[in-house]
Amino acid sequence: RVNADRLWDTLMDMAKIGPGIAGGNNRQTLTDEDGEGRKLFQSWCDQAGLTMGVDTMGNMFFTRPGTDPDALPVYVGSHLDTQPTGGKFDGVLGVLSGLEVVRSMNDLGIKTKHPIVVTNWTNEEGARFAPAMLASGVFAGVHSQDFAYGRKDPEGKTFGDELKRIGWVGDEEVGARKMHAYFEYHIEQGPILEAENKDIGVVTHCQGLWWLEFTLTGREAHTGSTPMNMRVNAGLAMSRIIEMVQAVAMENQPGAVGGVGQVVFSPNSRNVLPGKVVFTVDIRSPDKAKLDRMRAKIEAEAPKIADALGVGCSVEAIGHFEPVTFDPKLVTAVRNAAERLGYSHMNLISGAGHDACWAAKVAPATMVMCPCVGGLSHNEAEDISREWAGAGADVLFHAVVETAEI
Amino acid sequence: RVNADRLWDTLMDMAKIGPGIAGGNNRQTLTDEDGEGRKLFQSWCDQAGLTMGVDTMGNMFFTRPGTDPDALPVYVGSHLDTQPTGGKFDGVLGVLSGLEVVRSMNDLGIKTKHPIVVTNWTNEEGARFAPAMLASGVFAGVHSQDFAYGRKDPEGKTFGDELKRIGWVGDEEVGARKMHAYFEYHIEQGPILEAENKDIGVVTHCQGLWWLEFTLTGREAHTGSTPMNMRVNAGLAMSRIIEMVQAVAMENQPGAVGGVGQVVFSPNSRNVLPGKVVFTVDIRSPDKAKLDRMRAKIEAEAPKIADALGVGCSVEAIGHFEPVTFDPKLVTAVRNAAERLGYSHMNLISGAGHDACWAAKVAPATMVMCPCVGGLSHNEAEDISREWAGAGADVLFHAVVETAEI
Ligand SMILES: NC(=O)NCCC(=O)O
Ligand SMILES: NC(=O)NCCC(=O)O
Repeated sequence: RVNADRLWDTLMDMAKIGPGIAGGNNRQTLTDEDGEGRKLFQSWCDQAGLTMGVDTMGNMFFTRPGTDPDALPVYVGSHLDTQPTGGKFDGVLGVLSGLEVVRSMNDLGIKTKHPIVVTNWTNEEGARFAPAMLASGVFAGVHSQDFAYGRKDPEGKTFGDELKRIGWVGDEEVGARKMHAYFEYHIEQGPILEAENKDIGVVTHCQGLWWLEFTLTGREAHTGSTPMNMRVNAGLAMSRIIEMVQAVAMENQPGAVGGVGQVVFSPNSRNVLPGKVVFTVDIRSPDKAKLDRMRAKIEAEAPKIADALGVGCSVEAIGHFEPVTFDPKLVTAVRNAAERLGYSHMNLISGAGHDACWAAKVAPATMVMCPCVGGLSHNEAEDISREWAGAGADVLFHAVVETAEI
Repeated sequence: RVNADRLWDTLMDMAKIGPGIAGGNNRQTLTDEDGEGRKLFQSWCDQAGLTMGVDTMGNMFFTRPGTDPDALPVYVGSHLDTQPTGGKFDGVLGVLSGLEVVRSMNDLGIKTKHPIVVTNWTNEEGARFAPAMLASGVFAGVHSQDFAYGRKDPEGKTFGDELKRIGWVGDEEVGARKMHAYFEYHIEQGPILEAENKDIGVVTHCQGLWWLEFTLTGREAHTGSTPMNMRVNAGLAMSRIIEMVQAVAMENQPGAVGGVGQVVFSPNSRNVLPGKVVFTVDIRSPDKAKLDRMRAKIEAEAPKIADALGVGCSVEAIGHFEPVTFDPKLVTAVRNAAERLGYSHMNLISGAGHDACWAAKVAPATMVMCPCVGGLSHNEAEDISREWAGAGADVLFHAVVETAEI
């Protein structure tokens, strides 16, 4: 078993960097706080005797050598960046549990044939720079590095400039590393494990996603002196499209979600009907055909809704991943580890996207999950117990060591 | 007649300060650009031989003496501040036409019994600090100065600090001045005069307003891993409330408008259902009973809509003025001036709020309006012709001089 108390203390130490306003964290990617978090993580990995490599996307790789010089490493990781009002565990648990696995191996003098590499992927959240899982996506060849470097935050700063600014442009070619296997441990971010009273989620699949960014063009006009019949009201069109997205998600139950997290009115003044409204629809399903049908329906209906109000409507897909099936052998290794350790477990489809989804494109990959209180994540109140954290880390430890071969 | 070319040149000179991004202006109140605009206006008034007074709200008063030392002044003014994406004429036309009236009186050697005071009111727009017409409201005793000083912009800066920062806290007690009459010349900001092909709007009334700021409290949660039936979706509640406001306005046709110009999602991240949505409903009617009925209906329906989704709903009235009836004698002076000058004219109810609405609380007041292209305002594309501008200034000139008594 790992040292659950040490893992917990390490989590709490990291949470001191970029504190939120309500007990969580605001350590968004490529901010000063992200830089500080990376340094702290680096110092811990140094102390654990690991060797650092950093690629040109800022992905951090810490290697514990194996006994066979020709054996490819087993990777274990997740992300240290957070949402603007994020929790202390989303991502962080996976990275620091990777460190805890290595620390425990050191404690127990365990040697493996395959090296172990603990990984922190850059910009998993996608909150500051869309899309999510950006750097693991470049690693897996899904996006070009040029595309990633050009992504802009709401202030217009680019990913490339900000990565340079915080000093984490490495010298390794991104994606050059080959993996024997990839493991990622994460909180569920949903309600199922807690409701079913299970310690461990054995993650067999991840649902797919589309992010559809709508730009509605109305006519900026005075809210007082513009008669109702002369309005070209982009905000009203947005409201109707949000309602339609809700209906499309409900029609596709079970196995689908849809909603809107981001809305920007321009000029966003109380007495000006918005000339422009930009908002992002987030739809997901584990069923690729259903996911694509939902997208098609939303993209067909939205322009009709806008048109009826005289509002212009354009849409751009700014984020996408297909549903993923994780590697059956690694999934079995996770299930066996939970079984062996006496933890209750169940199969799970990940509701959120993870770096593991992109890693699965270039290596056998899977995930381990633990419950979180009330299924809550992307909320500063996100919470897990020390025991839940430790149980998943134990399972990760066993699955990783087994796959890395003693 | 005034010098319409000089007026136009003066308007175009002012428009150089705080240029917008699409041909209009961004000279929001108490910004550096507002400070620059005030300096330029002051220099023009100096050249015209006027004496400046500034009150503790930053309202600027430029006096041309009358022949009777006991006669109260005739005030003529409007505002130099703009929306974030505002036009070149909204407000500015009224202030600079006041200056043009005085310049023309100087040219023609006209002396009046009553002094003339050209006025620039601070923060008419209410875009940066709600409510609109803030400083004329303090002048009229509707708000306290403490209330005004404490108003915050979206960055949390206060009105009081920003007024000090740009150096326009005057030494006059606000509201101490007494007025013989108040005239305000403004673009219509609506479509009626252009549609009716009239040069001049004789403004008899102004419709009333409520700004209702709604705060919806949902539950911040992951857009992917939170099942539809576990969502507490404040954004969906907002959409339904916007639709309801539209319906309430339509039910109350004719003589009512309603809409939403400002929406703020928190945390406004693509993969986070908003925990909080704040938005402002703007409803107006010239009929006080109808206006209050609309408010009551919206405030009764919104919590039901929110409640059905488990969303918390609170509302605060952050802006209000009652419908105004302007002074019949001054209205007649405006109509007679238009008649005498041979300009086509019609009675008009102002759709927008104006400083004249507050001035009407403490003095006989009225307004003159000219058409604007397509009825468009609060839009950088706002436009008027040189002839329209000049016609209204002519009417203002005659009405002011008549009221100030030669
Ligand atoms: N795990 C997680 O929250 N990832 C961000 C990408 C997503 O929205 O699924
Ligand atoms: N004239 C004008 O746009 N005033 C701002 C206050 C309002 O919204 O009516």
